[in-house]
Amino acid sequence: MSNPDTPAADWFNALFAPQSVAVIGASADPSKTGGRPVNYLRKHGFGGRIMPVNPRADQISGLPCYADIASLPEAPEAAIVLLGANRAAAAVADLAARGTKLAIVLASGFSEAGTEGQARQRQLAEAAGSMRLLGPNTIGAVDLHSRIVLSASGALEAEDLPAGGISVASQSGGILGALLSRGAARGIGFAKLASTGNEVDLDIADLIGALAQDRQTRVIAAYVEGIRDAAKFRTAAEAARAAGKPLVIYKVGRSGAGARAAVSHTGAMAGEDRLYDALFAQVGAIRVRDFNDLLDLPAMLATGRAMRGNRVAVLTSTGGAGSLIADNCGVLGLDVPLMDGATAQGLAQILGEDAPMTGNPVDVTLAGVKPQIMTAATETLLNAEGVDGVAVVVGSSALAQPDVAVGAIRAGAERSDKPIIAYVSPHAPHILRALNLQGIPAFTAPETCALAFRVAQTPAAPAAPGAPAPLPELPADLPYGTLNEAASARLFAAAGLHGAAHRVVADAAEAQQTARDLGGPVVLKLLSDAIAHKSDVGGVRLSLDAATIGPALEEMAAGIARQGLPAPQGYLVQKMLQGGVEVILGARRDPQLGAFVLLGAGGTLAELADDSTMRLLPLSRADAESMVEDLRLSRLLRGYRGGAVHDVPALVDAILAMAGLAAALGPRLSEAEINPLFVLPEGQGVAAADGLVVLDDGA
Amino acid sequence: MSNPDTPAADWFNALFAPQSVAVIGASADPSKTGGRPVNYLRKHGFGGRIMPVNPRADQISGLPCYADIASLPEAPEAAIVLLGANRAAAAVADLAARGTKLAIVLASGFSEAGTEGQARQRQLAEAAGSMRLLGPNTIGAVDLHSRIVLSASGALEAEDLPAGGISVASQSGGILGALLSRGAARGIGFAKLASTGNEVDLDIADLIGALAQDRQTRVIAAYVEGIRDAAKFRTAAEAARAAGKPLVIYKVGRSGAGARAAVSHTGAMAGEDRLYDALFAQVGAIRVRDFNDLLDLPAMLATGRAMRGNRVAVLTSTGGAGSLIADNCGVLGLDVPLMDGATAQGLAQILGEDAPMTGNPVDVTLAGVKPQIMTAATETLLNAEGVDGVAVVVGSSALAQPDVAVGAIRAGAERSDKPIIAYVSPHAPHILRALNLQGIPAFTAPETCALAFRVAQTPAAPAAPGAPAPLPELPADLPYGTLNEAASARLFAAAGLHGAAHRVVADAAEAQQTARDLGGPVVLKLLSDAIAHKSDVGGVRLSLDAATIGPALEEMAAGIARQGLPAPQGYLVQKMLQGGVEVILGARRDPQLGAFVLLGAGGTLAELADDSTMRLLPLSRADAESMVEDLRLSRLLRGYRGGAVHDVPALVDAILAMAGLAAALGPRLSEAEINPLFVLPEGQGVAAADGLVVLDDGA
Repeated sequence: MSNPDTPAADWFNALFAPQSVAVIGASADPSKTGGRPVNYLRKHGFGGRIMPVNPRADQISGLPCYADIASLPEAPEAAIVLLGANRAAAAVADLAARGTKLAIVLASGFSEAGTEGQARQRQLAEAAGSMRLLGPNTIGAVDLHSRIVLSASGALEAEDLPAGGISVASQSGGILGALLSRGAARGIGFAKLASTGNEVDLDIADLIGALAQDRQTRVIAAYVEGIRDAAKFRTAAEAARAAGKPLVIYKVGRSGAGARAAVSHTGAMAGEDRLYDALFAQVGAIRVRDFNDLLDLPAMLATGRAMRGNRVAVLTSTGGAGSLIADNCGVLGLDVPLMDGATAQGLAQILGEDAPMTGNPVDVTLAGVKPQIMTAATETLLNAEGVDGVAVVVGSSALAQPDVAVGAIRAGAERSDKPIIAYVSPHAPHILRALNLQGIPAFTAPETCALAFRVAQTPAAPAAPGAPAPLPELPADLPYGTLNEAASARLFAAAGLHGAAHRVVADAAEAQQTARDLGGPVVLKLLSDAIAHKSDVGGVRLSLDAATIGPALEEMAAGIARQGLPAPQGYLVQKMLQGGVEVILGARRDPQLGAFVLLGAGGTLAELADDSTMRLLPLSRADAESMVEDLRLSRLLRGYRGGAVHDVPALVDAILAMAGLAAALGPRLSEAEINPLFVLPEGQGVAAADGLVVLDDGA
Repeated sequence: MSNPDTPAADWFNALFAPQSVAVIGASADPSKTGGRPVNYLRKHGFGGRIMPVNPRADQISGLPCYADIASLPEAPEAAIVLLGANRAAAAVADLAARGTKLAIVLASGFSEAGTEGQARQRQLAEAAGSMRLLGPNTIGAVDLHSRIVLSASGALEAEDLPAGGISVASQSGGILGALLSRGAARGIGFAKLASTGNEVDLDIADLIGALAQDRQTRVIAAYVEGIRDAAKFRTAAEAARAAGKPLVIYKVGRSGAGARAAVSHTGAMAGEDRLYDALFAQVGAIRVRDFNDLLDLPAMLATGRAMRGNRVAVLTSTGGAGSLIADNCGVLGLDVPLMDGATAQGLAQILGEDAPMTGNPVDVTLAGVKPQIMTAATETLLNAEGVDGVAVVVGSSALAQPDVAVGAIRAGAERSDKPIIAYVSPHAPHILRALNLQGIPAFTAPETCALAFRVAQTPAAPAAPGAPAPLPELPADLPYGTLNEAASARLFAAAGLHGAAHRVVADAAEAQQTARDLGGPVVLKLLSDAIAHKSDVGGVRLSLDAATIGPALEEMAAGIARQGLPAPQGYLVQKMLQGGVEVILGARRDPQLGAFVLLGAGGTLAELADDSTMRLLPLSRADAESMVEDLRLSRLLRGYRGGAVHDVPALVDAILAMAGLAAALGPRLSEAEINPLFVLPEGQGVAAADGLVVLDDGA
């Protein structure tokens, strides 16, 4: 749980609980963007001092207006700057000079707007000095518990914004407004909301880290376009996890079009999208794919009710909608079991039926319109031992007396701490709102109902990170560029990643002798720094023996010469691996998010099936184990259909060894890949068949 | 287009355009279900004669009320029966006796309610005789153009139900009500809606077939729990396709829980859910996975605007929402291209920018709040040659003057027939409704925006079905049960599906001789009717030759004996196939939907990846070709990464041959499967390596 004794950061207090606020560039016209903040502060009940600044007005909304920042009667704790991009830096400098703790800059036209804008953003940062800055290109911040709204978001036009346990950290102001507006209409309560925009200073990780310690925040919903500092983000997200506060994230940039749009929006460089799956998985955050889930799932999680198992009961007065919920629960792997004897008897008694009601969905038909029946049935289902969560369908019969319907469900939920949700089948925004306000998460999409139960399953405690694996000792004289296979194999071996027995040979005679020494079938490969895809140029031959390897080598040499390719540096003769499962194990560096390890199914077919997973460094043993579980291939590794069980512990060690190699190489790492790595039968370990390392100069 | 000269079926006119209606069991209390139909008929402006029947009332809503059906002054064209399940059959018999054309029975408690209910349903059918019946367990039917509402759906409480081009065929009354209620609130107009419930007579295929010919219907939205007659459904859906009317379907039952719920709801036996994917694909219907898409996609398709390519322009005044739309378009494979020179210049001029605006999303920021700018920018984008569809983001700035925002978008759309949609970012139900009413499909989920563009891409014309493949001539003396491999191979060969060269042998000596005759590596397999999974009992040995096959056979025989298994009927020696791509090709029979062909990737890895597809019989060449395209494996078949191109035409022939075998076997077919079938390199055909046929007695 959160620790209320942790003192919040100074900037966090200045942003969400300032004693005094200056509004720079305030307009007397409340319909203009510049007129909104003062208007909203008053409208939503801010109790501190508001100081509008505008040389062309004497007073705004009845408050004295000041000509400039120097004329302010006191140093404002926080300031909201509404000036255009070209005037913001000067105001920020003046505010910093007055000792303001935090300034919010709304203007766009900075790092998202080409080189000129980037220069402006640097000036802005310099002008702020040690004063903290939110933005630029932000819509500001809102605290609905203390009614502090340092924001120009049009969503604040709404009269009745319910306070609640969901806090929002958004890189987009428009998205913040959309969430606030949609949530308020549905009776979903928020705690604190802020948009970080271009993040010249405070970024989304700062916000998440501080919200993790905030008493009013139970769940954090984050809208992300790109993470600027992966390590900082991990620390913040881990703090939220440690405080027991779920972190739900929507990230754009799954497609090239989206990534490009994000760059031109807030200048966020995102890095490879799939790495965010890894990053979020590693900190236990929930990444949602549908935008509306960024509101719906936090609404579920804010109740604090957790599923102890995966069994859902559906209570409905309308069959079709009951089927929708049951079906979607089933699709997401939830169980919709028949009712046990006692529960079925209880339901029959409540509904005046002769026979026990074992069915699920529990169809109360028109009888369920009566509130006392709805309450009793809800309570019975929540009390059933074989039920972990209850979904109540609100049909059109509830439209006639919405308060009764809502009250009946609420009353039924009172004496249980199991999750209960409502699915509102007809258009009934008033019922939706009333239910949410009463603490019953209510949804209009059946898919969301099922997903809400899924995320409400008690999460596994985070695995202890354990001691980091010791870094391997690497040769001192590492070259640059693409290492040939023998050099790559030496480097992998230094990290503990060993290949099949092999030897480098110069000619057919040596190859013949080596094949005899190694025994069994062997593989012959070209050795060349200059040729990346050896098999494309006829540089790989499988299943050779002492009799066939000589002619094969001569043929290969002749083929290379015929294609006008550079003469090879030699040939590699390697014992051919058989009977294992082929995987790809590699490490690379994302320019934005840093080094990561990749594990995937090997072989052409598996590549077609796109069966791979990633984790960022640093990487725990639990991370390595979960990588194996991520793959569809893991079924094969663990013995599929009576097949052999393979050496998964050795694979996990290999993943950690690859992570260790990447960590030891540091900025030198460009790419390291073993493809295929054979995972051999249980107890026989793993063996690299082919590997490649590309090193940067580390500059 | 639809043919308005086709005379609608008698029942269709009686359902949606009756001259007179009897309401059996009408209640004088409009708040009761029994009071609704008369109330709704009057409220929504039905112009014909309404005859309530109730022995305990003299008049209802000012209309004379009749004591019984016999007392009615004329035979009603249609009747709606509101009596309980135990009294419905008598009323239906009376109505039939009076010469009523169609009766709607609302009561539940029939085939969905155990054996007793099933008996009641049979009585109901008998009582109807030649009179047509909708239901039982239906909410009735609605025609919003002619204001005929033969329904008790609470959704009809709404005052203002816009008429439009979407018709709804639903097996659930509650779902019909939800669609009507949600759609009306959002300004989405409907033509005709009916729920078929237990389908004792009229079923969803009847409805779809008639709607295909209905002039007011432009799109059909169907909610399906199970199809009772696949062939009839195909005919109806093909009629809709031929009439150019998209058919959008949501089907429950993707999970066991959902299938069970559907059975207890309307008694629908569904068959295997994945077969519905096949069925819908074969008739060109669009199956939606998210329930809300059952309303959203028809709203898009009802505009009749089609994408000519896949290029989308996004116009926004709020960056975050623009990113959402662009990203989701990209995820669904749509292109969000930069603007061409002329368009970029035009946008710059409109927005008063110095530099050409090539970006996409086109961010008009706050300038876009001005209506003339919004109109001009919308028009410019729609006119751009490189743009096939436009998404306009409505941000919170539009909240202040909703009519202006809506009008501006509408004006911009006027002179183009390209698809244009709106994404409404804040909570703004009035804007959503106004846009939809103006013919601009407006959505609140970014995922839906992208999907709407996808479905609006001009569909390929349905392939000519072509002459059905001639049925193979099968041996007259087909046995029953599981055929052994040799017998199976003979049956496949009769259908044109040939295996690798092989011979049946009795002992090691014969095996040795056969291996010599066939040449190259061979496979040895147990031949036994009694053992289904030969490889599990050591009954398959690969890569043998004349030297090794003898001992292998002896070993195999000893192993079988040691396991106490029945003595084999012999052994199969088969030329070992290499260098092809392995697939599974089979045919089976679904108890509900009939015979189908299955094609999947072969081998263990591919089975893990679940790469398979199905089509129902009858099956066209186009169907067979699309099956190959469905597989991820098709990339490999067509030559992946410079690999060999395989004989896809031969595979298509094989699929058709399998379909021919299934058709010829008719009810005898239980299961026929070739696994693996080798698809050999281009021009070399396909070859079955192993096959199995199981035949029923055909009773």
